[in-house]
Amino acid sequence: MITLASDFGTPYPAAMKGVILARTDARLVDVAHDFPRQDIRTAAFWLREVLPWFPPAVHLAVIDPGVGTDRTALAVRVGDHALVAPDNGVVLPAARELATSTSSTDAIEFFAIDDEGAASSTFHGRDVFAPAAAAIDEIGIADLASLDRITPMSDPVNCTLPDPALFDGRAAGEVLAVDGFGNVITNVPGDVIDHVDRVVVGGDASVGGEVPVGETFAAVDPGDRLATVGSHGNVELDVNRGRGDEAFGLSPGDTVTLEVRRD
Amino acid sequence: MITLASDFGTPYPAAMKGVILARTDARLVDVAHDFPRQDIRTAAFWLREVLPWFPPAVHLAVIDPGVGTDRTALAVRVGDHALVAPDNGVVLPAARELATSTSSTDAIEFFAIDDEGAASSTFHGRDVFAPAAAAIDEIGIADLASLDRITPMSDPVNCTLPDPALFDGRAAGEVLAVDGFGNVITNVPGDVIDHVDRVVVGGDASVGGEVPVGETFAAVDPGDRLATVGSHGNVELDVNRGRGDEAFGLSPGDTVTLEVRRD
Amino acid sequence: MITLASDFGTPYPAAMKGVILARTDARLVDVAHDFPRQDIRTAAFWLREVLPWFPPAVHLAVIDPGVGTDRTALAVRVGDHALVAPDNGVVLPAARELATSTSSTDAIEFFAIDDEGAASSTFHGRDVFAPAAAAIDEIGIADLASLDRITPMSDPVNCTLPDPALFDGRAAGEVLAVDGFGNVITNVPGDVIDHVDRVVVGGDASVGGEVPVGETFAAVDPGDRLATVGSHGNVELDVNRGRGDEAFGLSPGDTVTLEVRRD
Repeated sequence: MITLASDFGTPYPAAMKGVILARTDARLVDVAHDFPRQDIRTAAFWLREVLPWFPPAVHLAVIDPGVGTDRTALAVRVGDHALVAPDNGVVLPAARELATSTSSTDAIEFFAIDDEGAASSTFHGRDVFAPAAAAIDEIGIADLASLDRITPMSDPVNCTLPDPALFDGRAAGEVLAVDGFGNVITNVPGDVIDHVDRVVVGGDASVGGEVPVGETFAAVDPGDRLATVGSHGNVELDVNRGRGDEAFGLSPGDTVTLEVRRD
Repeated sequence: MITLASDFGTPYPAAMKGVILARTDARLVDVAHDFPRQDIRTAAFWLREVLPWFPPAVHLAVIDPGVGTDRTALAVRVGDHALVAPDNGVVLPAARELATSTSSTDAIEFFAIDDEGAASSTFHGRDVFAPAAAAIDEIGIADLASLDRITPMSDPVNCTLPDPALFDGRAAGEVLAVDGFGNVITNVPGDVIDHVDRVVVGGDASVGGEVPVGETFAAVDPGDRLATVGSHGNVELDVNRGRGDEAFGLSPGDTVTLEVRRD
Repeated sequence: MITLASDFGTPYPAAMKGVILARTDARLVDVAHDFPRQDIRTAAFWLREVLPWFPPAVHLAVIDPGVGTDRTALAVRVGDHALVAPDNGVVLPAARELATSTSSTDAIEFFAIDDEGAASSTFHGRDVFAPAAAAIDEIGIADLASLDRITPMSDPVNCTLPDPALFDGRAAGEVLAVDGFGNVITNVPGDVIDHVDRVVVGGDASVGGEVPVGETFAAVDPGDRLATVGSHGNVELDVNRGRGDEAFGLSPGDTVTLEVRRD
């Protein structure tokens, strides 16, 4: 199984699929091809959230603002999973999450893929990463290290999602992403609002103030704001049947503070 | 085979696919993940139009404004097909159409899926519906009733698409949907304009008046308006190589009246 | 294997997939369903770029502004590949490219598909082309000619992508497409800017003038313009981490002139 993620839109991912299917009959599953263009951190967040739900697979992820420069092409082995991506950090949070969620006792292994002789300088998704993903699928993830054109490396470019500052009854964090519903996903862990009735939202929010905490959107009337714990386990700022990003005036990268209130 | 439909955009459907593929190797086919957000009626219309073209399959459809409330999680068996969705009516028109189109002599059977212990209150697509669809695929649709955590129920939430009022030479209906081309799909059955030369369009249309009836878009010049019978069998208001919704000023839910004219 | 391309958006392609899967268990791969509506030339360009990367397959491509008119339904055999599309030229450039790239010694063969009795006049993707693609997959591409309802034809509607005028140190061409990143893809072959340091961009560009030639986007600072050779082998006008279409003021169909400069 090979999953595919990119910021390519269409039809470039189809060229990657053609290249793969000319080499292997692996099942292909799209993760997303509409990640924000060349935005490594947002893609890194979503890959961390989504990839651990898959069974063992080769995960191809091409968000590649440095295509054609001397950035390395990267392959990663995490237990039964492999990741193939540019060496810009985009798969590092997912690799760490896979190591945790699969309880792999092996260390995460990193490899450089030789990309000499790529047919283009601008589409390594097709010319470097897709062939590498197909080759790993064919040889088997356990034998990734024995592939030609792959050499161990030790110091991949990192990408860490920001940690919030947590105080007694207060958290200072950041907006990691806004999903398609407009839900504002923060980096503040959900347990900050356990047994909390309301939070005062501040930071870069253009419309802050006190909002109720609810277990589900329907805890408030349609159109009203709330804070809840999203499916990723973090605090979300939402509107029931509406868009939290618009109601709070928050975008990815904005700071957000939460002060808890109990009745 | 499992089909997937939602209003999730990306990448949430990939998490559902990961959950399914960790449990079964069923073929997965996307119906659409860009249905209008939390719009049960529009999704119900499209599911009714599209699902009956599939061979026997489990159809997963998650348009779920009530996620996390006490709305039931629903499984439906219609002959060789199964549907898995929130109990909000979104799959009822498709279920009735499948019963008709497959000439199933069995009654439609409804089941409640136990969703106690779901990992999240906000993403039952991943935590309730995807595992249920995978389990039905594994056990087989014929044996759906024997699954754990499934109990028969008798009174699912209904969703009926509105019926038009039909008079001699006149119909008063409603816009069910606007497709990606801008074609305005009404609930008026196509036979109302059989052997008709023109119709006078009224109701909420901001630009109404008389337009020709054509068997195909090319019956009029590019940019001109017409009424035709769409692929769903209903009257559509269209523009040849243009957008009918803009030319008529009509949106889903608007009323539309048609008076027939013969030369 | 059957690939699918259209300008349908969603959910109409799912109806085509249902029809196919009711007839065959072929692997299905989406090329794109968001091609510009009814724009034959742009789709023809992208199909030519993408389809040759696939292993032998039936390629279904429905961009069909003439649906329901007397335009013919077309099947094409090119070596191990087949194409199924309306006879409006949309697959002709791809067919010629497949003939070249697969080094097929056979001539390209054209067939008319009988579409009498199609269930609709507006959705031949579902009612004519999808069943034909499934039938070709089932009988095998080599035996395409022996299918019922298929007859040889000799004079399909052509679509030629425009050729540039090439002079010593100067090219007068056209914008073929703008991709999702905003890269302006011209019809000028890449070797025109081999060993060239800068080009002066003119024609319909609202912001022309001299820009550097780079092997990769990163040859210039983020936000700066450049000319490069894209993954299709043609000259592209781009912005590093930005949109070339906006920076140059160029759209598909615009003329573009390039004058080369060497240091």
